[in-house]
Amino acid sequence: MTNVTIIGAGNMGSAVAGIALAGGNGVQVLAREADKAEVNPQVTAGVVGDTITGDVVVFALPYPAVSEVLDTYAGQLDGKILVDLTNPLDFSTFDDLVVPADSSAAAQFAAQVPGAHVLKALNTNFAATLTTGSVGDATTTVLIAGDDADAKATFAAIIEGGGLNAVDAGSLKRARELEALGFLQLTLAAGEKISWAAGFALIK
Amino acid sequence: MTNVTIIGAGNMGSAVAGIALAGGNGVQVLAREADKAEVNPQVTAGVVGDTITGDVVVFALPYPAVSEVLDTYAGQLDGKILVDLTNPLDFSTFDDLVVPADSSAAAQFAAQVPGAHVLKALNTNFAATLTTGSVGDATTTVLIAGDDADAKATFAAIIEGGGLNAVDAGSLKRARELEALGFLQLTLAAGEKISWAAGFALIK
Repeated sequence: MTNVTIIGAGNMGSAVAGIALAGGNGVQVLAREADKAEVNPQVTAGVVGDTITGDVVVFALPYPAVSEVLDTYAGQLDGKILVDLTNPLDFSTFDDLVVPADSSAAAQFAAQVPGAHVLKALNTNFAATLTTGSVGDATTTVLIAGDDADAKATFAAIIEGGGLNAVDAGSLKRARELEALGFLQLTLAAGEKISWAAGFALIK
Repeated sequence: MTNVTIIGAGNMGSAVAGIALAGGNGVQVLAREADKAEVNPQVTAGVVGDTITGDVVVFALPYPAVSEVLDTYAGQLDGKILVDLTNPLDFSTFDDLVVPADSSAAAQFAAQVPGAHVLKALNTNFAATLTTGSVGDATTTVLIAGDDADAKATFAAIIEGGGLNAVDAGSLKRARELEALGFLQLTLAAGEKISWAAGFALIK
């Protein structure tokens, strides 16, 4: 059992909370606004600014909101496992990422909090596929990239404890490719080529 | 029916030839070496340097080999639909693409042959999934990016005529994301996370 803090109470945050709860982990959810605070009685609810109790912290926020939250917790995240699930798109055009072409949102966050173990994960999964645990007939796979093997194993165990598949996608450098995949999948859904409850399934 | 020329007689070239033949298209296969020339009697076989008879030309070659072949046919490719299926990896490290981070192999080829309609496609499909037509239980989907809608529709019809799914993945700018996806999928197979007969299936 791991204590997991999820920052953000939207669709992605709720889906990740469900996975962590299904595996018997302790779950704290910190909303950005008090009126969005989690009402699930299994969850310890709070707002951003409250003390983080988790050893694993999932930032279930839009890309532009993460950096400010990292600042809010400056000095309190060292040694923790931080999970970045953002897709740093220019949502006004759906035609570009807003991070440098040779970098990634995850790399930026890792540079901002060098004492933490940053993972890129969950950004290639639509919330519905995390909640149902499937993409079509296939079990949902969460791809995890990061530079710390123990951190990846800890987070993989949380995902697998919730009944989903976890696959090690390599070093944090691969966040660039995971963000490209997330970007592509978003454009396909926005263009109605696929539904928001489907997308790319990883077949082994 | 469309006349299709496939340059390259390896696994990918053979798989694409099979798809085009299944749909009743005319197929010419040009090998780089005479002793690799196609022996399938349904196919018009030849070697690079022979006159291209297809209106659609699939470059089923490793990335480093394409540019020289484009030079060989300088002035003879205008108006044709060129399909780039390369994954421009540094195969010595499996850790980088060898094209600029903000560009793609397809964009480079399009700049080299500005009179042709360049499509990025097939680079996210392992050869085995093109031959069997499936990725796990799902029908294989060929993602097609390009700037010319008619060219994309023509190539999509060839893919669908062979029993596979085709999905318009947007403008040629999306080649960057398709190449990232192909890169990621190759690293997963090379790392034995998935088999060379599986990979990402697109579920609608």
